[in-house]
Amino acid sequence: MSTRVAVELAKAYRLLNHGPTVLVSSAHGGKRNVMAAAWSMPLDFDPPKIAVVIDKSTLTRELVEASGEFVLNVPARLQAAATLAVGNASGREIDKFEKVGLGGTAATQVGAPLIEGCLAWLECRVIPEPHNQQTYDLFLGEVVAAWADPAAFSNGRWHFENAERRSIHYLAGGAFFATGDAFEV
Amino acid sequence: MSTRVAVELAKAYRLLNHGPTVLVSSAHGGKRNVMAAAWSMPLDFDPPKIAVVIDKSTLTRELVEASGEFVLNVPARLQAAATLAVGNASGREIDKFEKVGLGGTAATQVGAPLIEGCLAWLECRVIPEPHNQQTYDLFLGEVVAAWADPAAFSNGRWHFENAERRSIHYLAGGAFFATGDAFEV
Repeated sequence: MSTRVAVELAKAYRLLNHGPTVLVSSAHGGKRNVMAAAWSMPLDFDPPKIAVVIDKSTLTRELVEASGEFVLNVPARLQAAATLAVGNASGREIDKFEKVGLGGTAATQVGAPLIEGCLAWLECRVIPEPHNQQTYDLFLGEVVAAWADPAAFSNGRWHFENAERRSIHYLAGGAFFATGDAFEV
Repeated sequence: MSTRVAVELAKAYRLLNHGPTVLVSSAHGGKRNVMAAAWSMPLDFDPPKIAVVIDKSTLTRELVEASGEFVLNVPARLQAAATLAVGNASGREIDKFEKVGLGGTAATQVGAPLIEGCLAWLECRVIPEPHNQQTYDLFLGEVVAAWADPAAFSNGRWHFENAERRSIHYLAGGAFFATGDAFEV
């Protein structure tokens, strides 16, 4: 398991503020799953809330609606191939954890697992908004615990020293960008 | 004015898919404004929809609610200081276009201006969802026209050859990341 330290909830939005692609993990009734999502964003600071799009066709959708919980995991560049793979496969057909080599360990506040090797983790409870869910596949969540690998995020700041441990940003067709140079203005 | 060519609507989501920070421009009743937003994301492919958070305290909020329109502009690294400046100032106090040197030119489908020098532009009409707007400051929009600088985005792909013309990702406290290396898996 990757090292992880708690992130103060009021700063949890900073884990997503720069727009990385995430993995959505979920669990319910003995099933668990993980999918990729490029469409997520922070929604509020404190208590922290996030928004994420989860398509109706997915097993993730079924598990998230049944459990009312999920985790947003921020994968590293080293995990880009696995991120693409879990975005292209369905948890209805394969156990994606086994097939793509993504381990999961227990979270603290929710039943969904934390994906090993990621850079950061946001444990979320669904804020029920049936109209958004049904009409737009849009899920809102309150972040109830947040964690980060201190080698990549500490004191409220990302610092990507290791090229393979940068966060990633999906474009389309297997193409990604790594998070690039930090600068201040 | 920057060069711009039309982006096929079905591919407009790719302008935001990698999670760049955007500028939200708006206009109504002879007033216009521009603010920065790190919290936006695609919501659907075709017709393309997006989501963006617009705080109640802002002049932008007033103009967007009154007009039902806005533009998401994707700024370049060269515009990072201006992006931070329009994020920190209020359009109620200054004309941000004048003060921060961001020119605006006419859009095609909406009254809000396109910000000069940006990399891409998404002209949007608000999808009225009063509960989301009031409770979460969350606005949904349909993209009715999309444009990009062909030197940075063409054939459905971003290609950042010029370091100063990369898109940017805000973290906090004046700190940004540039969009980094492209890679395929």
